[in-house]
Amino acid sequence: MSDRGLERIVAATTTLSHVDGERGELIVGGYAIGELAASASFEEATWLLWHGELPSARQLDAFGAELAARRDVAPATMALLRDCASAAVDPMDALRMAIGTISLRSDEPAAIVAPLPTIVAAYWRLRRGGEPLDPRSDLGHAANFLYMLTGERPEAERVRGLETYLNTVVDHGLNASTFTARVITSTGSDLVSAVTGAVGALKGPLHGGAPGPALDMVFEIGTAERAEPMLRARIEAGEKLMGFGHRVYKVRDPRADVLARAAERMYTRGGDMSLYALAQAVEAAALRLLEEYKPGRRLQTNVEFYTALLLHGLGFDVSLFTPTFAISRVSGWIAHALEQRAANRIIRPQSEYAGPRGRRWVPIDERRAAAAC
Amino acid sequence: MSDRGLERIVAATTTLSHVDGERGELIVGGYAIGELAASASFEEATWLLWHGELPSARQLDAFGAELAARRDVAPATMALLRDCASAAVDPMDALRMAIGTISLRSDEPAAIVAPLPTIVAAYWRLRRGGEPLDPRSDLGHAANFLYMLTGERPEAERVRGLETYLNTVVDHGLNASTFTARVITSTGSDLVSAVTGAVGALKGPLHGGAPGPALDMVFEIGTAERAEPMLRARIEAGEKLMGFGHRVYKVRDPRADVLARAAERMYTRGGDMSLYALAQAVEAAALRLLEEYKPGRRLQTNVEFYTALLLHGLGFDVSLFTPTFAISRVSGWIAHALEQRAANRIIRPQSEYAGPRGRRWVPIDERRAAAAC
Repeated sequence: MSDRGLERIVAATTTLSHVDGERGELIVGGYAIGELAASASFEEATWLLWHGELPSARQLDAFGAELAARRDVAPATMALLRDCASAAVDPMDALRMAIGTISLRSDEPAAIVAPLPTIVAAYWRLRRGGEPLDPRSDLGHAANFLYMLTGERPEAERVRGLETYLNTVVDHGLNASTFTARVITSTGSDLVSAVTGAVGALKGPLHGGAPGPALDMVFEIGTAERAEPMLRARIEAGEKLMGFGHRVYKVRDPRADVLARAAERMYTRGGDMSLYALAQAVEAAALRLLEEYKPGRRLQTNVEFYTALLLHGLGFDVSLFTPTFAISRVSGWIAHALEQRAANRIIRPQSEYAGPRGRRWVPIDERRAAAAC
Repeated sequence: MSDRGLERIVAATTTLSHVDGERGELIVGGYAIGELAASASFEEATWLLWHGELPSARQLDAFGAELAARRDVAPATMALLRDCASAAVDPMDALRMAIGTISLRSDEPAAIVAPLPTIVAAYWRLRRGGEPLDPRSDLGHAANFLYMLTGERPEAERVRGLETYLNTVVDHGLNASTFTARVITSTGSDLVSAVTGAVGALKGPLHGGAPGPALDMVFEIGTAERAEPMLRARIEAGEKLMGFGHRVYKVRDPRADVLARAAERMYTRGGDMSLYALAQAVEAAALRLLEEYKPGRRLQTNVEFYTALLLHGLGFDVSLFTPTFAISRVSGWIAHALEQRAANRIIRPQSEYAGPRGRRWVPIDERRAAAAC
């Protein structure tokens, strides 16, 4: 059977997450995403994926302490981030390089998840001419990330907003980065190799690497009454509306609702509420126009639209969006790698050959002579 | 359709190479592997994969000069290799980390292929307490690698032996590392990300990462007359014979013949010819016994057996085997990445969900209380 994107091919059995694009459902660790994301800490969501059950209080305390103790990075990792900052490399490339160096110390799941926010925050500060901040072990995973970005102990509401985001995108079936992690693991390779490959895949603009445009569009529209005419002009010019449509979901992406509620809470408590209202007006106009111009295509708001709004509300600039996605998804990548390892078969598809055959070797001297004729 | 290893799934159309496991054929760039491998330089084989035709003399000169000019690595890369050596990390992990840092400078194909031997040789010398040697721009790709390992300008025969190996394994359909490179590329990501992921996959013992045992077995057997009784004992003890059997090839791996001839030339000209004769005796006994004990299974000598013999004949120790494989295969990875990019569709298979559903959230305090009951 031939399927270039493998869209109709089942490549793994998983107990980790389930995406039902027709019904608009996402289950993570047995919980509907709306049941889990706004309640759990990121430590709880990670434990759930790795162990199949929520942790007991004692397990959670121990796991939180383990992650907190492993947040610092090796001097070689920090030196590499400084070189990356000098060379102004893409934040996802810097993250890929830095997470790859975890092999200098360990290949354990917690040793990979724990320092990821340290790497992202350090690179973000270095690129702005600042100095990295040491992680704090008295804060949770999400709170410490916010601290390392700003140097301030974050308010509980902002931590909750970030954790809701992290939980919402922590796993999502065999997306391309998760599949990458499973293919690498299927050869018997290590976790850091699997995660490093997955970061490289997440960077791609067709996966996690182009999260800015939805927000840019909202800013460009500027006021609610301009939404309909500007969006109409875009559609008539044949342009895509960023933040709408998803290959899998044919109804509203269930993650959009969770993130919309989290964003609303964030903006209500001190954010720019007018931006939130504007985004809602843009969304409503976009859905109306998409139904008008592309009836039956069922193009819906996707996760990107409210991700951008929520992360912007947390004070993140666009360069942090995809790295923050990685801070979450790494727990899913590792869960899938462990699941692949537990029931492994090397992943090696077929290719169809469409090239020449039966060529005869011509030495370079004869090629040289022929060219001279 | 469900296929965990994707064995029966066509995931790409390619003009690069074709593996016919039933007929024992491997075509690379339109040439049967036996026609190409022992004649082409590695620069020619790489150009062939990247451009679909052998280079003209002028193209080859320019390409050779470009590769020669890009052999050195950034100070950050060398510093990282020194840290890897201090931490005694696996050579494939060191290679993965170092090749990932190419993003500090470039994402061009030649900038990735050219420094790979520099990285491998530097790490090999560092791990032995030596100092890396600067690359020489007056030698070809393979010759310079041999020079950087030993500090001596290599004899032509050794260069030819290495180039034959490199050409023989440069591409091989959608093996797991090549598929990894294509999945990463399918998201729109960069070449260094694709190659870094592929190195991680190649490390796995089910792919490129366990090349030593076939040679160990030959050494352990020691003399030709011990081959049959020792192999018989192994088979009767239920052990696998290393170097025999392949998931795809049901007849003799065509690469084995090319490598056997190259190894024979190497050993004839000053190598330990008795080792070569011993290996042949071991192979003959193994094939006889496999047919006797597992009739119809068609277990044949695979590429690993003669790879080990050839690389050993070149003076390589086992720690260099898989990194040298990567020095070759990187040209194939890049060719596949470019081919994927030219006719892209994101690779995102389905998964089948076998986990729980409908769980209700229980806050940690209630879990704590429940545990205390």
